[in-house]
Amino acid sequence: MALIVQKYGGTSVGSVERIQAVAEKVKQARDRGDRIVVVVSAMSGETDRLIGLARAIQQPPAPRELDVLLSTGEQVTIALLAMALDALGCPARSYTGAQVQVLTDSAHNKARIRDIAGARVQADLDAGRVVVVAGFQGIDEHGNITTLGRGGSDTSAVAMAAALNADECQIYTDVDGVYTTDPRIEPRARKLPRITFEEMLEMASLGSKVLQIRSVEFAGKYKVPLRVLSSFQEGSGTLISFEEENVEEAKIAGIAFAKDEAKLTILGVPDQPGVAHKILGPISDANIEVDMIVQNVAAHEQTTDFTFTVHRNDYTKAMDILRATAESLSAREVLGDEKIVKISLVGVGMRSHAGIATRMFEALAREGINIRMISTSEIKISVVVDERYLELGVRALHEAFDLANAD
Amino acid sequence: MALIVQKYGGTSVGSVERIQAVAEKVKQARDRGDRIVVVVSAMSGETDRLIGLARAIQQPPAPRELDVLLSTGEQVTIALLAMALDALGCPARSYTGAQVQVLTDSAHNKARIRDIAGARVQADLDAGRVVVVAGFQGIDEHGNITTLGRGGSDTSAVAMAAALNADECQIYTDVDGVYTTDPRIEPRARKLPRITFEEMLEMASLGSKVLQIRSVEFAGKYKVPLRVLSSFQEGSGTLISFEEENVEEAKIAGIAFAKDEAKLTILGVPDQPGVAHKILGPISDANIEVDMIVQNVAAHEQTTDFTFTVHRNDYTKAMDILRATAESLSAREVLGDEKIVKISLVGVGMRSHAGIATRMFEALAREGINIRMISTSEIKISVVVDERYLELGVRALHEAFDLANAD
Repeated sequence: MALIVQKYGGTSVGSVERIQAVAEKVKQARDRGDRIVVVVSAMSGETDRLIGLARAIQQPPAPRELDVLLSTGEQVTIALLAMALDALGCPARSYTGAQVQVLTDSAHNKARIRDIAGARVQADLDAGRVVVVAGFQGIDEHGNITTLGRGGSDTSAVAMAAALNADECQIYTDVDGVYTTDPRIEPRARKLPRITFEEMLEMASLGSKVLQIRSVEFAGKYKVPLRVLSSFQEGSGTLISFEEENVEEAKIAGIAFAKDEAKLTILGVPDQPGVAHKILGPISDANIEVDMIVQNVAAHEQTTDFTFTVHRNDYTKAMDILRATAESLSAREVLGDEKIVKISLVGVGMRSHAGIATRMFEALAREGINIRMISTSEIKISVVVDERYLELGVRALHEAFDLANAD
Repeated sequence: MALIVQKYGGTSVGSVERIQAVAEKVKQARDRGDRIVVVVSAMSGETDRLIGLARAIQQPPAPRELDVLLSTGEQVTIALLAMALDALGCPARSYTGAQVQVLTDSAHNKARIRDIAGARVQADLDAGRVVVVAGFQGIDEHGNITTLGRGGSDTSAVAMAAALNADECQIYTDVDGVYTTDPRIEPRARKLPRITFEEMLEMASLGSKVLQIRSVEFAGKYKVPLRVLSSFQEGSGTLISFEEENVEEAKIAGIAFAKDEAKLTILGVPDQPGVAHKILGPISDANIEVDMIVQNVAAHEQTTDFTFTVHRNDYTKAMDILRATAESLSAREVLGDEKIVKISLVGVGMRSHAGIATRMFEALAREGINIRMISTSEIKISVVVDERYLELGVRALHEAFDLANAD
């Protein structure tokens, strides 16, 4: 008898009919003999509706009160799902984040979970009930309602699974698993039956939006086996696990990409300690997130060239800041390009295998794709290329590493 | 510096604009130097929307889960009102029933308040904040969310005022006070500047729907001065107080009435102990509420005639039950009339004054109105008349007791 935490997102519970379909799925799992805890999001559209009400009143809305408001979204879903289960003859009980004691810090709108008191849930499971818990929300030490920020329901589910020492945390979503790359770009993309946590983290952080990155970190930290499945189709989805099998085969998990990037370069800055901080400090002070950072020795001696990428929305603001910095540092020139994308090859296999990077660069060169920046980590190689090469680059790499065929 | 609890109903907070108008009103009161606690209902229409969702899933909805669902209605309002106050520069904090610890029994959908922990609210008031509390909801001793049933927000406000030992509980509604009778029937109806609790109880229970009757009982029990005011107009409304002034003047507070009544009579039942219970037991077992009860010695000896009234919706069901009872009691006959109304004269003055009943009957007789039933209490005389005499009867009594003119 396994203990399973299932999580259903906003689309999966987006209507009365879909809530009833989720109830059927949950009941089936329980009828197989498993003990089930369900974590749900707000019905799709509800959070936006509530934010609309708040913004009509205050801009920006008071963070504490916004959490009181938004947390009603999941509260509606838990009640309706518990009713739907009850109507199927499956005893169920709903709990808000506050009731189940999802203790968070006090950072309203983006709180982090500190602890979950599992006792109450455990008692209901022992009594044969399905427990339905509101995702995305918690309570701070003073009893104030908090929310984890958008997508936080995945994290709630993983944290609940960790607190209950569950056998598996299943994230039901509108895709049926993790693919070698986006099937909309490469139709031959293949669903991975399993992927390691490290690979999933890289895939998630590089723009593969199947799972919220924080939930993957959380699952990795607490060793919760995570599975991504479809709410609407049958299938066993993708298991995210700790075992690294067959690393000898130079396994590449997949190709992630990030659109909407922009690149900024400052040329000819004095090559001395502290210069990176002088350049990036004002950028992060303006709340702009920096992604890739590359520094090269410049052609002129005693100076260096410095390039970094930001989200395209932040490009203009970042450019203004960088120009001011350039002036104060007496830099030679500032360059920018907002028509670039990042393509990344991810796989634990590259740890033990040389030659992956070469094969990657070769495949891109064969298609005449010019590489503008390169950055690597232990299990990932990222390149920045012109926006127009996105689809071509992804397909070339998918082919070069034979990802359409299971290894 | 007075401590005032203000309560705004669903219509008063029915839109973003109305919530902002309420915030202005609250801020004005605070700027006058008072400490303010605001209790609010769900935005009008919201509770019906939620009930619609629940019914689409389960009929009837599981009571515990229905409370989880419905309590989101007020939670949305408290957050929005706190934002609106904050936007006006008036520091505010919202609390759900669970957060403020409105402790109730476990009777879901119709819970009764047992206790309110005022400490948290008091601390915020001390810190200069307006406290916004969700009406209609509480929490039971096991931490389950409960609701007080429709209209329960009035009771929440009164209970909060009692717990905080407030100077006044102000109920803002869509009428500007309590009238001598319904102005739609008698345009000369006059707003009462004050009325006693007993009178208000009789008025409320007799169909004057300004206040929820349970909240009046609660206010009476805990000696909370209650004031009814309009959300939309200026004015000091009607104060419901304990002082009975000028009772020498044979003061009549007003004329209440109940439409949609129906009358059932059973003739010739054996006049022996327990017969009333035999007649009314099956009626109340069927969850039908009985209003007036009149028993007379019948023309035939050893038997009695028994008449009672019920809501018109229950008439057919009650008639079927009564016919079965009549058979088992060998009663002579069963009669019914579903076209009757009840008109009542209410006033503490009648305690010390004889002749009020006579004046009432005389006024009705003058208009040719036949009285079908009479029932009296210490401060009330009710008569049942044919439905078609409702308006005429009310106006005749309003005139006979000179209610259009302040005494």
